[in-house]
Amino acid sequence: MSAELVLALDAMGGDSAPDMVIEGAAMAHKRMPHLRFQMFGDQDRIRALLARHPKLAGAVEIRHATQVILPGDKPSQALRKSPQSSMRLAIEAVRDGAAAGVVSAGNTGALMALGRFVLKMQTGIDRPAMITYFPTVRGESAMCDLGANTECDARNLVQFAIMGAGFARSVLGVERPTVGLLNVGAEEQKGVEAVRTAGQILREAKFGFDFHGFVEGDDIGAGTVDVVVTDGFTGNAVLKATEGTAKLISSFLNTAFRRSWVSMLGYLLAKPALDALRAKLDPRQYNGALFLGLNGVVVKSHGGTDGEGFASAIAVAADMVKGDFNERIHADLDVFDHRETAIALIPAKAAS
Amino acid sequence: MSAELVLALDAMGGDSAPDMVIEGAAMAHKRMPHLRFQMFGDQDRIRALLARHPKLAGAVEIRHATQVILPGDKPSQALRKSPQSSMRLAIEAVRDGAAAGVVSAGNTGALMALGRFVLKMQTGIDRPAMITYFPTVRGESAMCDLGANTECDARNLVQFAIMGAGFARSVLGVERPTVGLLNVGAEEQKGVEAVRTAGQILREAKFGFDFHGFVEGDDIGAGTVDVVVTDGFTGNAVLKATEGTAKLISSFLNTAFRRSWVSMLGYLLAKPALDALRAKLDPRQYNGALFLGLNGVVVKSHGGTDGEGFASAIAVAADMVKGDFNERIHADLDVFDHRETAIALIPAKAAS
Repeated sequence: MSAELVLALDAMGGDSAPDMVIEGAAMAHKRMPHLRFQMFGDQDRIRALLARHPKLAGAVEIRHATQVILPGDKPSQALRKSPQSSMRLAIEAVRDGAAAGVVSAGNTGALMALGRFVLKMQTGIDRPAMITYFPTVRGESAMCDLGANTECDARNLVQFAIMGAGFARSVLGVERPTVGLLNVGAEEQKGVEAVRTAGQILREAKFGFDFHGFVEGDDIGAGTVDVVVTDGFTGNAVLKATEGTAKLISSFLNTAFRRSWVSMLGYLLAKPALDALRAKLDPRQYNGALFLGLNGVVVKSHGGTDGEGFASAIAVAADMVKGDFNERIHADLDVFDHRETAIALIPAKAAS
Repeated sequence: MSAELVLALDAMGGDSAPDMVIEGAAMAHKRMPHLRFQMFGDQDRIRALLARHPKLAGAVEIRHATQVILPGDKPSQALRKSPQSSMRLAIEAVRDGAAAGVVSAGNTGALMALGRFVLKMQTGIDRPAMITYFPTVRGESAMCDLGANTECDARNLVQFAIMGAGFARSVLGVERPTVGLLNVGAEEQKGVEAVRTAGQILREAKFGFDFHGFVEGDDIGAGTVDVVVTDGFTGNAVLKATEGTAKLISSFLNTAFRRSWVSMLGYLLAKPALDALRAKLDPRQYNGALFLGLNGVVVKSHGGTDGEGFASAIAVAADMVKGDFNERIHADLDVFDHRETAIALIPAKAAS
């Protein structure tokens, strides 16, 4: 049996909080009985909900929080005016060693700002990045950054590659991940300066992962690499565009099956197989984006998710804590920092 | 009956050229009998292929070209070493007024470079952009730039919006298009500087289209706007990623239907409906990306397409020639150029 693992949960973040947080925790606890939770939020509401989950209740410590950060709050407001918020207190539990990681379905910008302010950046990392994973033809792949940094230089991209590889080891269970840099073509001379320079460094340095080279948008769904690295503007647009395409095809399929009673009958016969496919592509399974680069595991759940989705986000946090993320990426960061030529070369080129 | 319309075709560009070019021209001519073609390439091969299409043959003038630009040729090579290439001569036919537009399935970079060199930029446009259209939940939408410019400033983005709206009028048949700027969020303060500044100009100026504001990746498939405007790096990644997602879901669907004989039977019953859906999403229907901003209509067909796809690209060229693209966008470009405040404001901000 695994040793106990304590996670801090922001019980008040998300559209259906605190209900879905408690439901998600109950599901996660059933699957991973070694989990313990510190739940931050309105103690009366949490206590009432826990009454329905006696097994979970024995694994939970409630920590009362009088403030809640709202979806519309700006990060600056969250930083200045919410010292007693459920989100902030949950992050502080990680800083103080009371919890090994934190999960919140609350305001993304606030979680990022508070995470960075309270936990500070990891040594060797300049800027945090957001990463998540998704289904592909060949299994599962991860992509970062998803929006934490809309503009990135070569140094940022190399650090994202190092951290992304660490995520693939811990969460996807790939011992030696392959990493690709998103670009407009596979040739070395293509794309913007920051991407070309990052590609050059990744090709030359000896990191603990395999650099595949440049990849294009269609390589994402094809699962060409375990980790796709890009700036946060492109990553955000691409991830949302693929979600939009999936919705589009699903809507077209629904219309197609309803075209005649024969096609409707066909749908009914194929329904178990289609349901299995739907389960495989269920976005709740892939819920849980991680902020990489902080001194601590901070997982962001979709705000609109339910208990099932929140349980997935808890699983991502548990995987990250168990994996040897930090030690392995430190080795790669050392390789990067000792490549004086590379470092000398970046500020000049990336600034152009 | 429409007046004759002459298009120049690069008969030697594309994986299956010249066969698919002649097949595509035959299909297009059947649908649009007022079309006439100047076909540039190996005259013996073209003549042999035309023998199978007597109706088309009467609408074709063959122009012999001794050189072919290959897929691996760099744009600079194409510019310097191929004065007698089928692609270059076809573009020159547009410059010389012998043809109203040109279609090629050859090397994209070479087509762009030759198009720009031979035809020059349209007055008021700083850089060309690539645009195409695709199916959405609400019909069809267009997106530009798709890779002609990997880095764009606010001025470029505003010009893309003006040209994109012109494309929507001519090819999608929307009298007053809606235009959205791709960003990482809908709020005005989000995203990179160039996008924010372009958003400000588009909100304030009185153009002949409606600026919807910022859109996100999932708005593309949802068809929220008629035209999505973005830089070429993001546009290229997003377009290819959505193609990848469509392939991914299609591969998963195939596996699902093969899961059991019952689901296979279901598939067979639903097959006519699914085939209709496949036809609706057929990428050959959406073949034909246009280079906006040149003094002439230049359409790029996918290199790997067949006759059906090439016929779609010909249709895009015909639509663009018929539409009053130039007059309408000139009105908007005038609005833009006379907004002295906007222009004063751009270079400073966009340069950051």
